[in-house]
Amino acid sequence: MDSWKAEESHRQDSANLLIFITLLTLTILTIWLFKHRRFRFLHETGLAMIYGLFVGIILRFGVHLPQDLSDVTLTCAVNSSPTTILVNVSGRFYEYSLKGEVQDSKGHDVPNAEMLRKVTFDPEVFFNILLPPIIFHAGYSLKRRHFFRNLGSILSYAFVGTLTTCFVTGLVMYGCVVFMKVIGQLGGDFFFTDCLFFGAIVSATDPVTVLAIFNELKVDVDLYALMFGESVLNDAVAIVLSSSIVAYQPEGDNRHTFDGSALLKSLGVFLGFFSGSFAMGAATGVMTALVTKFTKLRDFPLLETALFFLMSWSTFLLAEACGFTGVVAVLFCGITQAHYTYNNLSAESKSRTKQLFELLNFLAENFIFSYMGLTFFSFQHHVFNPLFIIGAFLAIFLGRAANIYPLSFLLNLGRKNKIASNFQHVMMFSGLRGAMTFALSIRDTATYARQMMFSTTLLIVFFTVLVCGGGTTPVTAPDGMTQRSTKHESAWPFRLWYTFDHNYLKPFLTHSGPPLTSTLPACCGPIARCLTSTQAYEDAGQLNDEDTELILNDGGGLMYSDMTVSTDAHGMPTTSTSQAGLYLLAGTSDDPLDRELVFGGTRLVLPTDEPPDPLTSFPPPPPSPPLSDPLRHRV
Amino acid sequence: MDSWKAEESHRQDSANLLIFITLLTLTILTIWLFKHRRFRFLHETGLAMIYGLFVGIILRFGVHLPQDLSDVTLTCAVNSSPTTILVNVSGRFYEYSLKGEVQDSKGHDVPNAEMLRKVTFDPEVFFNILLPPIIFHAGYSLKRRHFFRNLGSILSYAFVGTLTTCFVTGLVMYGCVVFMKVIGQLGGDFFFTDCLFFGAIVSATDPVTVLAIFNELKVDVDLYALMFGESVLNDAVAIVLSSSIVAYQPEGDNRHTFDGSALLKSLGVFLGFFSGSFAMGAATGVMTALVTKFTKLRDFPLLETALFFLMSWSTFLLAEACGFTGVVAVLFCGITQAHYTYNNLSAESKSRTKQLFELLNFLAENFIFSYMGLTFFSFQHHVFNPLFIIGAFLAIFLGRAANIYPLSFLLNLGRKNKIASNFQHVMMFSGLRGAMTFALSIRDTATYARQMMFSTTLLIVFFTVLVCGGGTTPVTAPDGMTQRSTKHESAWPFRLWYTFDHNYLKPFLTHSGPPLTSTLPACCGPIARCLTSTQAYEDAGQLNDEDTELILNDGGGLMYSDMTVSTDAHGMPTTSTSQAGLYLLAGTSDDPLDRELVFGGTRLVLPTDEPPDPLTSFPPPPPSPPLSDPLRHRV
Repeated sequence: MDSWKAEESHRQDSANLLIFITLLTLTILTIWLFKHRRFRFLHETGLAMIYGLFVGIILRFGVHLPQDLSDVTLTCAVNSSPTTILVNVSGRFYEYSLKGEVQDSKGHDVPNAEMLRKVTFDPEVFFNILLPPIIFHAGYSLKRRHFFRNLGSILSYAFVGTLTTCFVTGLVMYGCVVFMKVIGQLGGDFFFTDCLFFGAIVSATDPVTVLAIFNELKVDVDLYALMFGESVLNDAVAIVLSSSIVAYQPEGDNRHTFDGSALLKSLGVFLGFFSGSFAMGAATGVMTALVTKFTKLRDFPLLETALFFLMSWSTFLLAEACGFTGVVAVLFCGITQAHYTYNNLSAESKSRTKQLFELLNFLAENFIFSYMGLTFFSFQHHVFNPLFIIGAFLAIFLGRAANIYPLSFLLNLGRKNKIASNFQHVMMFSGLRGAMTFALSIRDTATYARQMMFSTTLLIVFFTVLVCGGGTTPVTAPDGMTQRSTKHESAWPFRLWYTFDHNYLKPFLTHSGPPLTSTLPACCGPIARCLTSTQAYEDAGQLNDEDTELILNDGGGLMYSDMTVSTDAHGMPTTSTSQAGLYLLAGTSDDPLDRELVFGGTRLVLPTDEPPDPLTSFPPPPPSPPLSDPLRHRV
Repeated sequence: MDSWKAEESHRQDSANLLIFITLLTLTILTIWLFKHRRFRFLHETGLAMIYGLFVGIILRFGVHLPQDLSDVTLTCAVNSSPTTILVNVSGRFYEYSLKGEVQDSKGHDVPNAEMLRKVTFDPEVFFNILLPPIIFHAGYSLKRRHFFRNLGSILSYAFVGTLTTCFVTGLVMYGCVVFMKVIGQLGGDFFFTDCLFFGAIVSATDPVTVLAIFNELKVDVDLYALMFGESVLNDAVAIVLSSSIVAYQPEGDNRHTFDGSALLKSLGVFLGFFSGSFAMGAATGVMTALVTKFTKLRDFPLLETALFFLMSWSTFLLAEACGFTGVVAVLFCGITQAHYTYNNLSAESKSRTKQLFELLNFLAENFIFSYMGLTFFSFQHHVFNPLFIIGAFLAIFLGRAANIYPLSFLLNLGRKNKIASNFQHVMMFSGLRGAMTFALSIRDTATYARQMMFSTTLLIVFFTVLVCGGGTTPVTAPDGMTQRSTKHESAWPFRLWYTFDHNYLKPFLTHSGPPLTSTLPACCGPIARCLTSTQAYEDAGQLNDEDTELILNDGGGLMYSDMTVSTDAHGMPTTSTSQAGLYLLAGTSDDPLDRELVFGGTRLVLPTDEPPDPLTSFPPPPPSPPLSDPLRHRV
């Protein structure tokens, strides 16, 4: 009978998963229909959410299953809650594992509670299975020339900006909560740390939604790089920040007052988690780069792709096993893989890895959004408080404004390439909240405060995705920047990093860049020879690296110039600049978006004092697919 | 403290998974090294297994962890084993879910028992996560011209042959067990049904290992098709057969004697499970074909690939939710997808889906094999009985022989294309046991009989993979067949099926084949027009379908002819037959193996009374990659 019960439970699980798979299939078909008919008012994640909402309504109100009597719950009074218990049933032992604390064992006030409980996933599923591919994909997509060019600004927005958002939102929420307590609208405890936690989770803007929407709208490349870079990195900041706030626990009785040592501890946690996760992500990325560089694994794309996938996954596991934040490690691993390892991969593995993570990301993202829709009705402990909700919307608005406007003003003081005010408005209003915010808020819904936060967060995600996601369209006029500058950001720490990366890291980790023998001091000769690949010697001086221009500075032998490139009917580029330069561009760029950036923005051409011979230095442009429909490549 | 405990457990899980990921990474690097140095004596799955063995030894004998005291197990005496129990810990409720029955709660006789238990996966993981991609990939790889040509023989081997193997093995084992009981070597119950169950699980030969080894050795295409088709289908037969044997439970006290009604019930279970799973797999495959045919989803490869993946996965879930066998459904779904849906996909999705399932298969397969190695030392209830082991090896040898030789003799009576005797020897000795046998035997290790079976099965898998896997090499001389015949198998049921498939199913489900308007009776005109794609009209009479030749019969207007094709230094084919025919071949085949088959064996050329114009009918051959290294594409 027990095996029958286990089988029954397995069948139920399969059926529940099937609901989600069907939902995703429907979403895909509707996305196709929308794209096909050129409807643009709703983003695909919004669609997934709406389908989820419908299924949630049906499950909650439409289906009435008889209470499952075989699923009796027993109560044994014991003194602790171990992770495993053994139950003695007339001499046979059954093993049970801890699932978690149950808030309200008699809370069957909601109809179909049993059914709804069954379509509920363990929140850790989001953190351990669904978020990693999304975040890795975001990092892996950062292989954009303009990202490193705007690194200073991006880091400022991500760190200073996210901290500002978090604290401003937390303070506004605290005001709101105090007011609610005064007028007697608060049904439970809500401490200042809870407010800060709320600030942290809603400060994570969604890279994927931003990526998808901006990608379709073909906005300015710098706007894209800034927005995307910020939204990717602030996820990492928000997740570590929320952990640090949870770690803030003053000792003694008065647990919710200010405590200097606890604050210092939280700060330590923040720095420790962040740097540890960063180091692990970068380390496995570097290791993958070295393995792919020094083996001839590229002859076997399947092995190469499998290795790439496993090493990237091991980052997550390694960080989690060491107690760091896996998702953050995965993000930095993705960035490192894109910056170094990607250059070592064979052409087939390049497209395989991209397509694989694109697919995983697409599925995970849509799964999360449809689950979000469903959980709106299936979650049984919603606390919707109108005052809190209004306060929250106000708070995230103010928090975002306090991030973007003052910071842009400060950054503009140092930037040659100013961030225009309409550019700032776009950044302000396209701060969508998505998968990360949801995953952080559903992770712990044990207390009244957390339940109210979760319900409110769901509304915020719905609103930003459905309203702002559609609303970003009219704002983004093509002239986002004051005027395209041809100079990169010139803050010295970044210049230093570029030079170091170009002269030492790239040649060490990839086949490109100048040979180490020419950059390292003479005493390191033998090591340098050993570490430089023969390819690097052959290519010395040539620009076979796809992101060469980010490591150039003004004094180099190369210069930027504007170039107007149009495409003819067959998608073959025609240009008004030197043919050689164009061949370089067409030959080195294999990503549609990269190519788009190339043909849309400013580009590097070779210095005129060394005119290259197009027949020997560069291969003729390969027959590239038509560029007319960029959607085709990245949906 | 409880959240700390959950975190600790999560860290432990991450660390354990990390062990496997590291193992897989090492395996990949060693595989590369072996391929690079052209070592051929060991197959990659064998490597994974050996690494697993080493880690198992280290975990068992090398590492001595202190007993984990926080993991105290409690015993509450209750009267049933529900799937969920609530534990009341000083007023707080904790939810626990059933993990399964524990055999021996005090069985800490093995050192490091706690540690070893932790690296043990739930056996259902193999069935629900790891086997489906492997089996789907096997089905999806059956897009081989020669498979359908040998369908009759393949089905005979798979059904009649597997049943024979199962019963012969079972009988031999029963003799062995009876002998053991007589001389007092049997430590527990071992019934005839257990023997039959053992026969069923060891009769599943591994398609993937066969595929990988034969692929590298470039054996005769017919030998390949027969072997591969048989090994794919006998997995399905073995899994359903083992379920049916478990279902054989005579009522009343005397549970292990012969009972006619129970036998009939088992037979019903077999037919029901098989046909139900087949129907579900084929149904979702057909649905995917229709969706991809009638939408323009092919404009968005990511959506198309995602849909393909989800629909294929939903087959598994649907079958499991309905109580059928998901793995079998997935196999037939894979075959249907390959035969119909694949033709509707865009070129990018074709390569994406292939690469995706190739990767998933590779990872899952190597994971299973390294787990197999590890579990050899980490499993705590091994029962190694020398007599039983010797009996088992004898039994599988006799069982396989009783399958191959008599059946080949009978088939040769009807086949124009005889199966030569050395061909039969190869089939006899390359019957490796792999993932399916392992998954079936680890699924239930509760009784003494099952534990002895599991231990013996592990040895059988190790032996067949390490010894036979390497040993297949010298036997497979290229002249496996008596002489290549140019006629396909002509049994009338298969001829009938070919015609039906060609005239109705292909045109209905794909864009190829003759328009339905020409094959359906006149009265169905409107429906036929509605269901035929415009592409089919344009292509009418042309051979744009990749497997056209399997639906031809002798009376048709087309003929077979031998063709000698060699490749020049750049991999471009040069031929001694008509250029037009070659263009056709080069243009329609996008799979390296397909291409290999094309250039290696007999091929179809157009009838000479309708000479096609190569410039209008067929595109010139695309610049294809060099054919010299087929390993590169399928490792």
